Amino acid sequence: MKKNLGSKDIVFPTPVFIVGTYNAEGVPNAMNVAWGGICGSNPPSVAIAIRKSRCTYDNINEKMAFTVNIPSEQYVAESDYFGMDSGKNGNKLERTGLTTVKSSMVDAPIIQEFPFALECKVINQIENGQHIIVIGEILNVVVDEDCLGVEGEPDIEKIAPMLYNPAKVNYYGIGSKIEEAFSVGKKFMKKE
Amino acid sequence: MKKNLGSKDIVFPTPVFIVGTYNAEGVPNAMNVAWGGICGSNPPSVAIAIRKSRCTYDNINEKMAFTVNIPSEQYVAESDYFGMDSGKNGNKLERTGLTTVKSSMVDAPIIQEFPFALECKVINQIENGQHIIVIGEILNVVVDEDCLGVEGEPDIEKIAPMLYNPAKVNYYGIGSKIEEAFSVGKKFMKKE
Repeated sequence: MKKNLGSKDIVFPTPVFIVGTYNAEGVPNAMNVAWGGICGSNPPSVAIAIRKSRCTYDNINEKMAFTVNIPSEQYVAESDYFGMDSGKNGNKLERTGLTTVKSSMVDAPIIQEFPFALECKVINQIENGQHIIVIGEILNVVVDEDCLGVEGEPDIEKIAPMLYNPAKVNYYGIGSKIEEAFSVGKKFMKKE
Repeated sequence: MKKNLGSKDIVFPTPVFIVGTYNAEGVPNAMNVAWGGICGSNPPSVAIAIRKSRCTYDNINEKMAFTVNIPSEQYVAESDYFGMDSGKNGNKLERTGLTTVKSSMVDAPIIQEFPFALECKVINQIENGQHIIVIGEILNVVVDEDCLGVEGEPDIEKIAPMLYNPAKVNYYGIGSKIEEAFSVGKKFMKKE
């Protein structure tokens, strides 16, 4: 039997994006964003949905740039904190002890301890109720060298990203590989 | 050391959204979409990025509605197939043996064997390079009763959703719970 739960902002999985920005004075900020995802391939682009009241939103409009940093599981406490406090209360990065370096492509900070980051320039903003959807063109992907796989691709298991579970407000790790894509489904294709 | 990989459409995790639509004749279709995510809370809304050439895009414009169905791991082959074939070649649902029922809220099909679905009405469409971002207001969340947790919430472990890994084109399961959100990060908050 199916049960109707009404209108809710729940889906599985949602990501743990730590969005990095600078304010007008160059102070870095980090915000935890679960409402987002890749939104285009040509150009490669990523969408994040945030409230206009956020420090990150002011920073994005100041610099027209942001990074999306993917934390490993071991940084769950830091990542959670980035979703609880505001940059308006001080330098959140400093409080966690995490360090940043300026992106070589855009005016936004990369969190050095995190294994994976996207460097993004803002190409669009769309009003969507209480949120604004900010679209960033991904100018560069930065990965820790020790998180690369045998073919030089980012290795999801070495990166060990987290998921956010909005139904129960907690974090999960990734599990095991199930199957290859564009492969296991072939059995349903029409025989020529 | 960090390595620059250039401009790529990679992030972790990306979801396995099976988007359900009807064509003008009422034939159901299912498409596998990894570019998407929740994009607002008030109203609850979800974004999916698809190419205009897709059967699903025609259907969305016909009905101004879609569902986002979340498959359990056991349906990895069916889900993969939905990303390989086009509804222009025939009824993909029929080929997999999966069954649909019309949403009670919108003119779109719910895949009955999948444990979780969002019923969405189209509220916006944004051009984004080769993709179009379709925004759906989530009018209802439908969950299998045996996938509910003790507080009546959708239970991520019972639903057993998959992740798509765009860096290596394969599917992963979810892992174990790491920590509670809005909780484990408290240790970094300023003491009053």
